[in-house]
Amino acid sequence: MTRGNLFQWPEGPAGGERFDALVTRPGLRIERILSTGQASAEGFWYDQRDDEFVLLLAGAATLRLEGAAEALHLAPGDWVHLPAGCRHRVEWTSTAPPALWLAVHHAP
Amino acid sequence: MTRGNLFQWPEGPAGGERFDALVTRPGLRIERILSTGQASAEGFWYDQRDDEFVLLLAGAATLRLEGAAEALHLAPGDWVHLPAGCRHRVEWTSTAPPALWLAVHHAP
Repeated sequence: MTRGNLFQWPEGPAGGERFDALVTRPGLRIERILSTGQASAEGFWYDQRDDEFVLLLAGAATLRLEGAAEALHLAPGDWVHLPAGCRHRVEWTSTAPPALWLAVHHAP
Repeated sequence: MTRGNLFQWPEGPAGGERFDALVTRPGLRIERILSTGQASAEGFWYDQRDDEFVLLLAGAATLRLEGAAEALHLAPGDWVHLPAGCRHRVEWTSTAPPALWLAVHHAP
C-alpha cells in the first residue's frame, strides 16, 4: 500500500512545472502535475500514444484540442478524457493558485 | 473526447451512495463515488481482483486495512493505492460535506 496527499510537498513546491508519478505500471501511469503559469510552446501539440484522463484539482487552465472552434476553460473539478492521438495543447495555466492536475495515462 | 465536472450532478445528488463511471475500458475503470455517511457493513471486507487508486476530494473518511493497527483517517487530497487482494473496509464517511472520491480500478 502506498499513500500520499496531493496538496502536500514534503520539500515544498519547486519553481518550475512539476510531475510526480504516483503509480506506475505497464500501460498505466497516474501522476500529479503542478503548473505555475506554464503553457505549451507556440505551435507545439501533445500527440500521445496513450489515452489520458486529466482532472484539474485547483487553479485554472485553458486547453485547446486541434480542430476545435472553442478552447476549453477548466475550473477545479473539470476533467477531460483525451483518446490517444487527440492532439491538444495547454494554452494557459494560472499562477495564484497554480494549476494542480491529476493525470491518468493508460493504454487505449 | 468526453468531459465533465466532478463537483456537478446535472440532476442533483441522489440520497444514497452513488457511483458514476467516467471511463470504462478493459482493465480500467475510473469512477466518481459520493458517500453520504455510508460505511462497509459490520464484518465486510472489500477483497478486489484489481488494484485501486482512491483519492478523497472532499469530506472525510476512515479506511481500515486488514491487519493494520491504525485506521487511515483521510482528508481532502489524501490518496491510497491498494493492491489487488488488500482487504479493506470503509469504517466511516462524513455527511456534511459528503465524502467525494475518485477511484481508478486497474488490472494489476
